[in-house]
Amino acid sequence: MAIRILGVDPSLRCSGYGLIDVEGSRMRAVAWGIIKNKPELPISTCLLNIHRELSEKIELWQPNQAAIENMFFFKNPSTAIRLGEARGAVLLALSLQLPEVYGYEPRKVKQSIVGRGSATKPQVQMMVRQLLGLQGEKLSADAADALAVAICHAFAKASPVFRSEPL
Amino acid sequence: MAIRILGVDPSLRCSGYGLIDVEGSRMRAVAWGIIKNKPELPISTCLLNIHRELSEKIELWQPNQAAIENMFFFKNPSTAIRLGEARGAVLLALSLQLPEVYGYEPRKVKQSIVGRGSATKPQVQMMVRQLLGLQGEKLSADAADALAVAICHAFAKASPVFRSEPL
Repeated sequence: MAIRILGVDPSLRCSGYGLIDVEGSRMRAVAWGIIKNKPELPISTCLLNIHRELSEKIELWQPNQAAIENMFFFKNPSTAIRLGEARGAVLLALSLQLPEVYGYEPRKVKQSIVGRGSATKPQVQMMVRQLLGLQGEKLSADAADALAVAICHAFAKASPVFRSEPL
Repeated sequence: MAIRILGVDPSLRCSGYGLIDVEGSRMRAVAWGIIKNKPELPISTCLLNIHRELSEKIELWQPNQAAIENMFFFKNPSTAIRLGEARGAVLLALSLQLPEVYGYEPRKVKQSIVGRGSATKPQVQMMVRQLLGLQGEKLSADAADALAVAICHAFAKASPVFRSEPL
C-alpha cells in the first residue's frame, strides 16, 4: 500500500509544499507548489492564508504523514520569530488533521537526498528532480525544498539507522 | 457600550491570558489565567493545546478586540523560533475569530501602564492590580502580563496620540 507524505517548507511570504506517494522503493510526486503572501499583507492575514490553504490541501489529498524542515540558526532574531510564526501556522494545520508530524534538520535533509550534509541547494534540487522523475517540469526552489523534506522522511521511515523525528 | 478586550502573552509552555471590559474610563477584569504545557509534551501538542484552549475561550467570552505583546529581541535564535511558533498558534486562534488583532512593543506596554518604558515587571504587575482593582486576588506573572497588554490596547484606542498597531 502506498504511503502519502506531505512535505512543507514554511515561510511567512512563500511557503513551499510537496506531496509524494511512496510504495516500497518507488516514489512519485503527486502535487507541489507554493503558498504566496504579498509583502503588503499584515502578518495575521499571512498566517490565516497559510493555515487555510494548507488545511484545504490536507483535506483534499489526505496524506498519511507530514514532515517539515527544522530551523534553529539565524543571524537575525526578528527573522527567526517571523519564521517561527509561519512554522506555528503550518505545524498547527498539519497537527489538527494528522496524527504525527516529523521535523528534520537541514543537514539531514541534504544528507538523505544528496549523500552529503553540506550539499548546495541546486544539488538538492537536481536530485529531487531525478528521484521523482521531474526533469522537464516547472518546479520552484521552495516547492523543491518541500519535496526534499518529504523524500527525506520517506528514507528515514524505511531506514533502520536514520531515525525519524516526530515533532 | 462596553468593549471587551482579550490580551495574550504567548509562550510555548505557559501562555497568559486576560480579559477586560472597558466602558469609558472604567476598566474591569473579567477573567485571567494561563495555558500550561508540560515540558515533556511535543511541540505540535503544545501548539494544538494553545490553539484549542484559546479558541474555546474566545467562543465563550466573545471579545471585540485582542492584543498581544510584540517580541523581537532575543539572545538565542532557537528561543526566538520557539516563541514564534507559540505566537503563530495564538495569532491564528485570535485571527480566525476576531477581525483585528493588535500588537504592542514591551516598552509601550510598560509606558502605558506605569508611565515609563523602563519599568520593572513587579511595577507593571502592581499597576495592573491597581488599575483593575485586583488587590487580594491570585494573579500569576503571565496572566498579569496578558492583562497589561489588554489595558495598553484600551489606552491606545482611547488616546489621540498613542497609536494602536494592528498586526
